[in-house]
Amino acid sequence: MAAIQLNPIGTVICDVPDDEIGRRRRTLESAIQLNDEYRDALLGIEQYSHLIVLFWMHRVTGPVSLQVHPRGDSALPLTGVLASRGRGHPNPVGLAVVELVGVDGCRLTVRRLDAYDGTPVIDIKPYDHYDACTDIRVPSWLLERQSAGNESERGNGA
Amino acid sequence: MAAIQLNPIGTVICDVPDDEIGRRRRTLESAIQLNDEYRDALLGIEQYSHLIVLFWMHRVTGPVSLQVHPRGDSALPLTGVLASRGRGHPNPVGLAVVELVGVDGCRLTVRRLDAYDGTPVIDIKPYDHYDACTDIRVPSWLLERQSAGNESERGNGA
Repeated sequence: MAAIQLNPIGTVICDVPDDEIGRRRRTLESAIQLNDEYRDALLGIEQYSHLIVLFWMHRVTGPVSLQVHPRGDSALPLTGVLASRGRGHPNPVGLAVVELVGVDGCRLTVRRLDAYDGTPVIDIKPYDHYDACTDIRVPSWLLERQSAGNESERGNGA
Repeated sequence: MAAIQLNPIGTVICDVPDDEIGRRRRTLESAIQLNDEYRDALLGIEQYSHLIVLFWMHRVTGPVSLQVHPRGDSALPLTGVLASRGRGHPNPVGLAVVELVGVDGCRLTVRRLDAYDGTPVIDIKPYDHYDACTDIRVPSWLLERQSAGNESERGNGA
């Protein structure tokens, strides 16, 4: 299959240092500065409370390991990268469900976007009821971490 | 910003005709055939009930309009493509939250994937509690369509 080419549509603006983004994710506010040419593509987006943001984890480099210990914790079971939400996927596309705080021209203010300052944004999708699944099953190690309050850092930055 | 290059990691296998996928989406079973080289990257994925699948809508061609009537219905308000879940985004990356039915080697059987047969798959992510937002706000036209039972077809194919 041929390679696929994407063009960034905007950039993440975040004034929190990279290594604090995971820990502060739940309340973190940052912005997406959309390229001017896409301004008209935002019409009506303020009617949604949540968005899905796809971004390019441009700082991921080097060879990819296909199995990892989640969260970098060797006590957690070895897991395939596609069964994990870390940064080591074959295509390093980040995905975050965020709250839309405000829209001002080409600038979207959002909460809970775990992407570094300067990250290229690939796509924005409004979040709707199809995306919300409440009756889900996840691994027991993940439930245990959540119960222990250790999952604030889950995300692309983890 | 420079262009981004992705490589497909697998392919959608679906024996339902393209024009029936939207309508049958709720119960549709299809498969993702992952390239053999990524087999080890699936370790543990069967512990999740739901996945997020990113795919490349390879049949989308031609110039992109930045505003559309959702679902192709001129009675619905003109909406920016980034405020809509149609096929006309600047980067035609499809996203579907699917149920994981089974795993057999490099083949994942899934339910509710609204992607055509032969679609290149870009990424697979396990769905967890961070992705589930229940207290959401969406446009009134979308709520009205859902109440009227007209939203079975929402999706990338709509």
